[in-house]
Amino acid sequence: MSKAATVAYLGPKGTYSEQASRSYFPESTFIECRDIPEVFASVSSNSAVFGIIPVENSIEGSVNVALDLLFESELNVTGEVEQRIVHNLIAKDDIGLSRIKAVVSHPQALAQCRNFLRTRLPEAEIIEAGSTAAAVKTVRSSNDMVAIGSELAAKSYSMKILVSGIEDSPNNYTRFLVLSHGQAARTGKDKTSIIFSTEHAPGALYEALGVFAKRKINLTKIESRPARKKPWEYVFYCDLEGHQEEEPIKEALGELRARTVFLKILGSYPRAGLG
Amino acid sequence: MSKAATVAYLGPKGTYSEQASRSYFPESTFIECRDIPEVFASVSSNSAVFGIIPVENSIEGSVNVALDLLFESELNVTGEVEQRIVHNLIAKDDIGLSRIKAVVSHPQALAQCRNFLRTRLPEAEIIEAGSTAAAVKTVRSSNDMVAIGSELAAKSYSMKILVSGIEDSPNNYTRFLVLSHGQAARTGKDKTSIIFSTEHAPGALYEALGVFAKRKINLTKIESRPARKKPWEYVFYCDLEGHQEEEPIKEALGELRARTVFLKILGSYPRAGLG
Repeated sequence: MSKAATVAYLGPKGTYSEQASRSYFPESTFIECRDIPEVFASVSSNSAVFGIIPVENSIEGSVNVALDLLFESELNVTGEVEQRIVHNLIAKDDIGLSRIKAVVSHPQALAQCRNFLRTRLPEAEIIEAGSTAAAVKTVRSSNDMVAIGSELAAKSYSMKILVSGIEDSPNNYTRFLVLSHGQAARTGKDKTSIIFSTEHAPGALYEALGVFAKRKINLTKIESRPARKKPWEYVFYCDLEGHQEEEPIKEALGELRARTVFLKILGSYPRAGLG
Repeated sequence: MSKAATVAYLGPKGTYSEQASRSYFPESTFIECRDIPEVFASVSSNSAVFGIIPVENSIEGSVNVALDLLFESELNVTGEVEQRIVHNLIAKDDIGLSRIKAVVSHPQALAQCRNFLRTRLPEAEIIEAGSTAAAVKTVRSSNDMVAIGSELAAKSYSMKILVSGIEDSPNNYTRFLVLSHGQAARTGKDKTSIIFSTEHAPGALYEALGVFAKRKINLTKIESRPARKKPWEYVFYCDLEGHQEEEPIKEALGELRARTVFLKILGSYPRAGLG
């Protein structure tokens, strides 16, 4: 999808968020944000028309801060992007693995390359960084420290890729959501994201899910997050197949609103490849 | 509950895990583990009789690595502990906030003190550490770096508490599970933890939850985690009120086994205070 507009993403340059943003919005102006709250703020304040945030990785699970901000924000979800994560071992020069003293990366990237690190670099010190791109930046002038990061990060900082595809699982995808003030039109192949909470009573979640089951609406995801107001109460994040303007979805959401103590419709948007 | 046995917990000394372990097992020998996998391994190999692992925080949500290891491990869950989390700003000396250049802590603790850090220490660099106790250890000899951690950590390393109770929410509890090779007997006020996965079909989760709803069995928690074998497929972690040897629970679990593609009963155990 191509839209010439300003897009805010989670920086620094070379993150998987930037890769996802450039693949979804190929011809745009980009604003690099320091953290996920800043992506929300950039769109809320109209500094950017769209924001792209990582919400879930197929190995590590959800990005909690993103889910919590979706709960609070007035922005809509108008798209999703799925990005296959290919991790690379990145260094200033083309050095042999035996010369590597330390590996720097984001904790999730380090976790996702656990087998590679254990078998190929068992002696190297592991150092955590705030992002994969920050890690690449950190090792920019080192002779014996390497980073794990994206191809784009290696390119952005003019670094060498020593080994490509070092992630343990080939099923490594990150899902990003596109935020904006607008709404996405129906395409016939859409998804709708909602958040709801039920009373704390036996069968309450079951009753809530019944509004979808009886209409054969497929839930592609359900995730619970702490409600925060009281320990051990939860809100549920669900993704459904279909657009909120389609009749069965509209009906189901109306019934759900009557059966739950809280319902927020985050938005409907075209489905990405795998979802 | 007091049991004189060897207990493995997530170290280093002074973690909230140590606090929880000492409150649940007041008269025991403790083994300090480097990470959560090591707690599982200590109990599996009989180096410890019990292990205590953090599984969930009432603000941040689940501890993903703990959930993933519960899926793989052959150990049973035989208890739970709830610990109120009070975060403290800890330094070597009693310095003013304006002199602080960096704040070191575990990412969850940093996240839980977001408001305090933003308003009182907006200029300080944020540095992530493997645990709150490791953070305290790190800043032990620094004049301008401080840590966020427990009172026990400050005491263990003979440090000063600059500000106490800096967590954003008073509803900040961490829930720990007790692991062992054994099983916990019925007390009449129990919980049962299970993991299951369903076919990828509309209504499959709804049908699964129906086995509990129709018997008025209360779910105190439901949480999804990526199945890892295929992107965007999930396994569900549920906690139910009741013991697996009680008739309605036994029946419901039998029916659930028939309706799901995978079911693992982690164990039944006495309920903690709030749960």
